[in-house]
Amino acid sequence: MDNRPIGIFDSGIGGLTVMREIMEQLPYENLIYFGDTARIPYGSRSEQTIKKYSYQCASFLKSKNVKAIVIACNTASSIALDHLKNQFDIPVIGVIEPGARSAASVTKNGHIGVIGTTATINSSAYQERIMEFKHDAEVIGIPCPLFVPIVEEGWEYSNVAELTAEKYLAELIEHDIDALVLGCTHYPILRYTIKKVVGPYVKLVNPAFETAKDLKKILGEFSILNENFELPKYEYFVSDAPERFRRLGGNFLKKEIDILSEIAIDNL
Amino acid sequence: MDNRPIGIFDSGIGGLTVMREIMEQLPYENLIYFGDTARIPYGSRSEQTIKKYSYQCASFLKSKNVKAIVIACNTASSIALDHLKNQFDIPVIGVIEPGARSAASVTKNGHIGVIGTTATINSSAYQERIMEFKHDAEVIGIPCPLFVPIVEEGWEYSNVAELTAEKYLAELIEHDIDALVLGCTHYPILRYTIKKVVGPYVKLVNPAFETAKDLKKILGEFSILNENFELPKYEYFVSDAPERFRRLGGNFLKKEIDILSEIAIDNL
Repeated sequence: MDNRPIGIFDSGIGGLTVMREIMEQLPYENLIYFGDTARIPYGSRSEQTIKKYSYQCASFLKSKNVKAIVIACNTASSIALDHLKNQFDIPVIGVIEPGARSAASVTKNGHIGVIGTTATINSSAYQERIMEFKHDAEVIGIPCPLFVPIVEEGWEYSNVAELTAEKYLAELIEHDIDALVLGCTHYPILRYTIKKVVGPYVKLVNPAFETAKDLKKILGEFSILNENFELPKYEYFVSDAPERFRRLGGNFLKKEIDILSEIAIDNL
Repeated sequence: MDNRPIGIFDSGIGGLTVMREIMEQLPYENLIYFGDTARIPYGSRSEQTIKKYSYQCASFLKSKNVKAIVIACNTASSIALDHLKNQFDIPVIGVIEPGARSAASVTKNGHIGVIGTTATINSSAYQERIMEFKHDAEVIGIPCPLFVPIVEEGWEYSNVAELTAEKYLAELIEHDIDALVLGCTHYPILRYTIKKVVGPYVKLVNPAFETAKDLKKILGEFSILNENFELPKYEYFVSDAPERFRRLGGNFLKKEIDILSEIAIDNL
């Protein structure tokens, strides 16, 4: 029994889809979210820069006395997870492994699609991890850079969203995939449009959901679940533009963002 | 006569459309471009942050002995121009004023549209400047956040681009505008698609073109044009991910990017 909060960080707002899954699956846990909005997007940064930023985000959460850290950002998970595991003495989990494991287990024909930002796809992080779980899988990665701004416009059900999805996903459909990893934290918000384009036989894998499931398991194994069954506390921190975060955040979280603070990036 | 280079900076790659106009209108000038790719986009940052970043970009160019500085970024122009003018003893020009002056002069019915990033439109920089030039103008600003990633995907002639333009520009067409300011450096690349949507009677104003024209005039007034009629030298600096800059840059510049260096952001 441990009522310390769980820390979650992302390069911006997208990680709120991960936080939302954690709220649903671990409804008694106190949560602290940090969005590094001053330095978003991580996707176009160099590896070294991403490692440094991720370490700073995790250090900030550690300073808030968290009992575990969730890297909700796909880019940071793919590049900085091992680095952070080595640096901190609490559990650190990313979104790649849970997503990859689920994709490998739900596919029947072994043809798996992965969509994400250019950086996530180019890193091959999902592709390689899936192959470790399923050696004979055929994994195809497609970067979909328009999906993030479409979600941030609130256009997830528009004809622009559908046409864009058709353009990006055509190659995956040609390859007869039967599982598709939503490898960017924004994409679960587009899942109905994506599902409409890929059809009913393709299983969508949401790494946010799988990560929350893994987190629950790990907290149980370490005996650090919060068994204080009261209303949990949710706190949010960003490194820039808190008003935009509050305004857009609702669509990701389906919940108001109450306790929100801005912290100076130089203090990280 | 002054053969020192002209410095141009932007938060990323978009300012290359401004550089291109300068190359065409001032073909003998040496140019140094700095793209702050490590900290793009400026649009979602706070005013204070944008001023600090802009000052650092301008200081870097000054350290390269430039004779004038062009702020090719709309966000930085709208927020940091006066600040930089006060800090440096060489001419500093932004893209807002030239674009606003041209819009005010080409409109016949006084209905002017401005499109740009969310930050540029919310700052009202173009809107206010246009009203100074033409008090009775009716100016309508519409943020178009999807246009940048559409251009960066090379989708400027696609049905996604056209549908997106229809969605964004419908309100401007309803307001019977006869002039439209392309208030983001990426947008000139979309001008054919935008023109198709708004129709032949709407004049498109390209601030990049107007800025180059103003720059030429100012250099003449200060007697610092380069009258050494040799092939000029073009140098490029970025703060992160030079390969992406080189790859995408061609579409903006219609020219190879040869001399490209990466500089550490901490050295700014």
